Amino acid sequence: MTLKIGVIGVGMIGQDHIRRLTQVLAGASVVAVSDVNAKQAEEVAARVGANAYTTGEALIDAKDVQAVIVTSWGPTHAQYVLAAIKAGKPCFCEKPLAETEEDCLEILDAEAAFGSRLVQVGFMRRFDSQYRAMKETVLSGAIGAPLIFQSGHRNPSVPGYYTANNALTDTAVHDIDTARFLLDDEPVAISVISPRKNSRGGGLADPLMTLIDMRSGALVTIETSVNIAYAYDIRGEIVGETGVVTLAERNDVVVKANGVFSGRVPADWKERFVLAFDEEFRQWSAAAKAGGATGPSAWDGYVATVTCATGVKAMANGARETIALREQPSLYRSA
Amino acid sequence: MTLKIGVIGVGMIGQDHIRRLTQVLAGASVVAVSDVNAKQAEEVAARVGANAYTTGEALIDAKDVQAVIVTSWGPTHAQYVLAAIKAGKPCFCEKPLAETEEDCLEILDAEAAFGSRLVQVGFMRRFDSQYRAMKETVLSGAIGAPLIFQSGHRNPSVPGYYTANNALTDTAVHDIDTARFLLDDEPVAISVISPRKNSRGGGLADPLMTLIDMRSGALVTIETSVNIAYAYDIRGEIVGETGVVTLAERNDVVVKANGVFSGRVPADWKERFVLAFDEEFRQWSAAAKAGGATGPSAWDGYVATVTCATGVKAMANGARETIALREQPSLYRSA
Amino acid sequence: MTLKIGVIGVGMIGQDHIRRLTQVLAGASVVAVSDVNAKQAEEVAARVGANAYTTGEALIDAKDVQAVIVTSWGPTHAQYVLAAIKAGKPCFCEKPLAETEEDCLEILDAEAAFGSRLVQVGFMRRFDSQYRAMKETVLSGAIGAPLIFQSGHRNPSVPGYYTANNALTDTAVHDIDTARFLLDDEPVAISVISPRKNSRGGGLADPLMTLIDMRSGALVTIETSVNIAYAYDIRGEIVGETGVVTLAERNDVVVKANGVFSGRVPADWKERFVLAFDEEFRQWSAAAKAGGATGPSAWDGYVATVTCATGVKAMANGARETIALREQPSLYRSA
Amino acid sequence: MTLKIGVIGVGMIGQDHIRRLTQVLAGASVVAVSDVNAKQAEEVAARVGANAYTTGEALIDAKDVQAVIVTSWGPTHAQYVLAAIKAGKPCFCEKPLAETEEDCLEILDAEAAFGSRLVQVGFMRRFDSQYRAMKETVLSGAIGAPLIFQSGHRNPSVPGYYTANNALTDTAVHDIDTARFLLDDEPVAISVISPRKNSRGGGLADPLMTLIDMRSGALVTIETSVNIAYAYDIRGEIVGETGVVTLAERNDVVVKANGVFSGRVPADWKERFVLAFDEEFRQWSAAAKAGGATGPSAWDGYVATVTCATGVKAMANGARETIALREQPSLYRSA
Repeated sequence: MTLKIGVIGVGMIGQDHIRRLTQVLAGASVVAVSDVNAKQAEEVAARVGANAYTTGEALIDAKDVQAVIVTSWGPTHAQYVLAAIKAGKPCFCEKPLAETEEDCLEILDAEAAFGSRLVQVGFMRRFDSQYRAMKETVLSGAIGAPLIFQSGHRNPSVPGYYTANNALTDTAVHDIDTARFLLDDEPVAISVISPRKNSRGGGLADPLMTLIDMRSGALVTIETSVNIAYAYDIRGEIVGETGVVTLAERNDVVVKANGVFSGRVPADWKERFVLAFDEEFRQWSAAAKAGGATGPSAWDGYVATVTCATGVKAMANGARETIALREQPSLYRSA
Repeated sequence: MTLKIGVIGVGMIGQDHIRRLTQVLAGASVVAVSDVNAKQAEEVAARVGANAYTTGEALIDAKDVQAVIVTSWGPTHAQYVLAAIKAGKPCFCEKPLAETEEDCLEILDAEAAFGSRLVQVGFMRRFDSQYRAMKETVLSGAIGAPLIFQSGHRNPSVPGYYTANNALTDTAVHDIDTARFLLDDEPVAISVISPRKNSRGGGLADPLMTLIDMRSGALVTIETSVNIAYAYDIRGEIVGETGVVTLAERNDVVVKANGVFSGRVPADWKERFVLAFDEEFRQWSAAAKAGGATGPSAWDGYVATVTCATGVKAMANGARETIALREQPSLYRSA
Repeated sequence: MTLKIGVIGVGMIGQDHIRRLTQVLAGASVVAVSDVNAKQAEEVAARVGANAYTTGEALIDAKDVQAVIVTSWGPTHAQYVLAAIKAGKPCFCEKPLAETEEDCLEILDAEAAFGSRLVQVGFMRRFDSQYRAMKETVLSGAIGAPLIFQSGHRNPSVPGYYTANNALTDTAVHDIDTARFLLDDEPVAISVISPRKNSRGGGLADPLMTLIDMRSGALVTIETSVNIAYAYDIRGEIVGETGVVTLAERNDVVVKANGVFSGRVPADWKERFVLAFDEEFRQWSAAAKAGGATGPSAWDGYVATVTCATGVKAMANGARETIALREQPSLYRSA
Repeated sequence: MTLKIGVIGVGMIGQDHIRRLTQVLAGASVVAVSDVNAKQAEEVAARVGANAYTTGEALIDAKDVQAVIVTSWGPTHAQYVLAAIKAGKPCFCEKPLAETEEDCLEILDAEAAFGSRLVQVGFMRRFDSQYRAMKETVLSGAIGAPLIFQSGHRNPSVPGYYTANNALTDTAVHDIDTARFLLDDEPVAISVISPRKNSRGGGLADPLMTLIDMRSGALVTIETSVNIAYAYDIRGEIVGETGVVTLAERNDVVVKANGVFSGRVPADWKERFVLAFDEEFRQWSAAAKAGGATGPSAWDGYVATVTCATGVKAMANGARETIALREQPSLYRSA
């Protein structure tokens, strides 16, 4: 009844997922871990009573591993996802699915050859109750057809090595997937505006305003502000034909003191999305037990990678660039 | 590592806790159930792979039962809690701890004789993030010493057999415990005002305004409106010397359409407190594994029962009645 | 076309009304002033081009004075209101209408003898857009019959001479009038609870919780906190049979910085009610030009005085006291 | 002491200003009116006791006219403003100051020749308490240097003759002026995106997303949705280096009924900006009495006209167009 999971890559995020699967959620156990750092793999394995493997491929092939989580370094995602598909084992892969379009396409082909979904990509916002309510509002017809989605993604600060390209591939990538999810639509073109720079960033082009045209004609605007100090603040509003739906401000209490009322804004993504992560793994575990996957698919991972790569090009060229996507395989159409 | 639990009483609430422990949370399994309805006990047992027992006492004595949950009919709570204490097994008991002051005192004596806490009472609000933030705000000094706590407890509707006494013992009992928790204080007197009746209640004295004086002099007002139709709405505000703290309105999205903005209010207590229940059992499981309990204690259950009983008397007499409490045993002081 | 007004009493509030009438609002001019302090009367008169009178009675009798505003010391209100009625001139009187029940009754009799309304009492909240929206909500039936009105009246601080009686007669008096206005109902009994004292008040019994039973059975609770430091905060919520209506938090902007969102709460009653005062005098001027009055009447002033006096007695006795009111004269019934 | 005003153009907006000046605000009287429709001029004149003139020029030259309000048809604004400057009389002109850049420049030259400000343009948002609080927040440094201003301008519906150009020149023009006011900055380039059309508009390109680069590098985004049905909703948020400031939702009451909380959104611009109009004319009257003007100047009118015209070109070309502005005359620098 318990899903036996192998985790490839036990850095910060991998260990957090292990904690979630073993200490928070019912129905799963971690039986295998691997890491490029063999010693760390062994330590984590000992802590949770799992076996340590020297390679991700060996872990995937282990008899007792029923499903695989890939939380290794981004450039290695594709090889493990492909190995998991080859082994016919359900596989949860943190974003990105793969760093290149070519690798994404190879995964799509492999999954198509397998014949049903095995891969789920870690776009946890699709499991967030606020975004879900937003999507339900659109589907209910309460605001009419959606015309514009304005997304805001604000981080208190980023490390010094963070580049404007990261603002697209690591930060805005979530908003891109969210836009596709909320609007049930695909991107066709992208441009990136770099306004006055935040002086806190040491020359980093921040904030950015990314504009995406969707197939329906709907417009997506994404403000990324990655050094905004005050909090981790995720904003979103869909403008429809007859109304709008907005992510509500959520907080536990309002305090009135010293002439003002005030309330807390989340400090970081862990605080903001903790329940979305829980729900993501709860649903993945259930789907993986049934031999499959749910929510964001390899297709979603592919579109995200292509859109971000086109955005990087658009930013470099200072121009609107067309996003060229393969036709969606039938495998993903019923999702 | 997994806590093996026996559940006494598998009605609606008992089954919901079983679902939570087996399908939602990590670290627990249900190995035994019993119910006054033997057939229902057997059905539930079969479904979760547990053993069915014909009596709660037999379940408590079962070798593989490490901890006990009492979700049977209120009048039977005391006997099972006492049996669990006698067996030295951690015991979670839904409110009320016991229906009479005498039974509560017997439990306090039994636990004192055992020498450490075994009993936890199901006041789940103590695990709600909003109330916790409220308490933290008070403790932070941000509003100065608390002087008044105004609580509002609104249900859409109650069944026909519900009485004004129920509004105290089943509804306001949560606000009474919350007040004690938030103010870290004990009640000394209670009165109950019955204003104009809600015509939806067929003669039921509803709403009620219950007033409680606390030992510090702080005042607690509890509005219970049990047939208010619109939603399940839990309100609360603490007035301090220099500020106030209020439970925030929480909702996922705000919709603007047809001339208004609007957002959802929870439909029922399950929607409102689902995460509090999860947290309650997460913390109880951890404490029970360590052989004890956490959060609301037998003492808290005792004070709630005495306060409600005095409130029932005050309502009948139309007078302010003094609440007579035993001195708090040392066992509960460090809590 | 311009209403020529005489103002009796040109202290702070009188001068503020003169400023409002001459510099803010259209359609009125101040032609006469008087004050117990003759020099101050002359200075103000010189500034606005009015005549100074040595007595209020002389001012009332002046040919060019078409309407009278009484903003003198409270104990002198009754004599000037009576003189204005005798002169058949419209009269706006700041609260209280009179300090004793006897004086109020004499005014009611005088106005009845005159045959139509001449007197308006300065309960400016009746002209506040928020309270008006609250009343319209009740009248619309959106929340069903009103059962409880919970009012909160918070001042940052009061001077050292302020007493607990003042908390009723100067502070809660506004909430009492508001309750009558919102519920369209009359008070029948009152009690006052004095909880733990705010240590900022040097022994002042503050906050107070005043409870009023209305004729319909509806309950009114009034929290007065007169030394609460943080702001001037007026709260209100009506609990109906099927819903509730609450005064919204109003502010211009929300700022997010340093981990919190925040917004301003009004600093004092002038900031909170500036527009209500404007509207009050706009409507009074129009009514006075037509020879009458609008909004809060001598009857409203009478009920407020009696209710406050009974509240003072209730507080002294620690008991619920019945409020004995004269039958409402027909003059006030169509209001 | 009273300002004697002549009003050129007594259509809907002209009559509303006359009502405001004669019935709402202190200190002004309307002594002269003119209109292309002579009969209407005479009717309005009779109603307020003013003289009717057959031409705006005759009105401006009338001895008793101390200040002029221009609320005639847009194409005639320039000639009257120039005539008022020639006569040395303070002049309030509804937007646009003039419909062509050439006319705007002629006005700037005339005012420069006169030597001090005589002209005020009707950008009433500069007198709105919410925008003022927004600007004060920026000036306070609470959010750091402003980097992005996101403005939203939503109308329930527009008439059939309304074009996408109108969405810039009549609707977004307010947001353009607001952006300059809030950021204390000038526009340098503009582009206009036309996403999926609202099907309610019969082919109208609506909504539009207008992007403006400011001299400082700050980015302005303006969403105009002119057929959005639900309400008249003005949104705005400034993203700074360390925080954000947002126009608060304002409403009188919140109602909870039928499972939701809800509050009103303004129905139209009159409801939303009624107090801003009052304040605008209160301040203009005072400034005009002193022989000048305050708030939005001829320079502001000029920049608005040029920016809108460039936006119309940008929309037609589907390209980012540079906004070419004259150097700001010293007359406007101290504003």
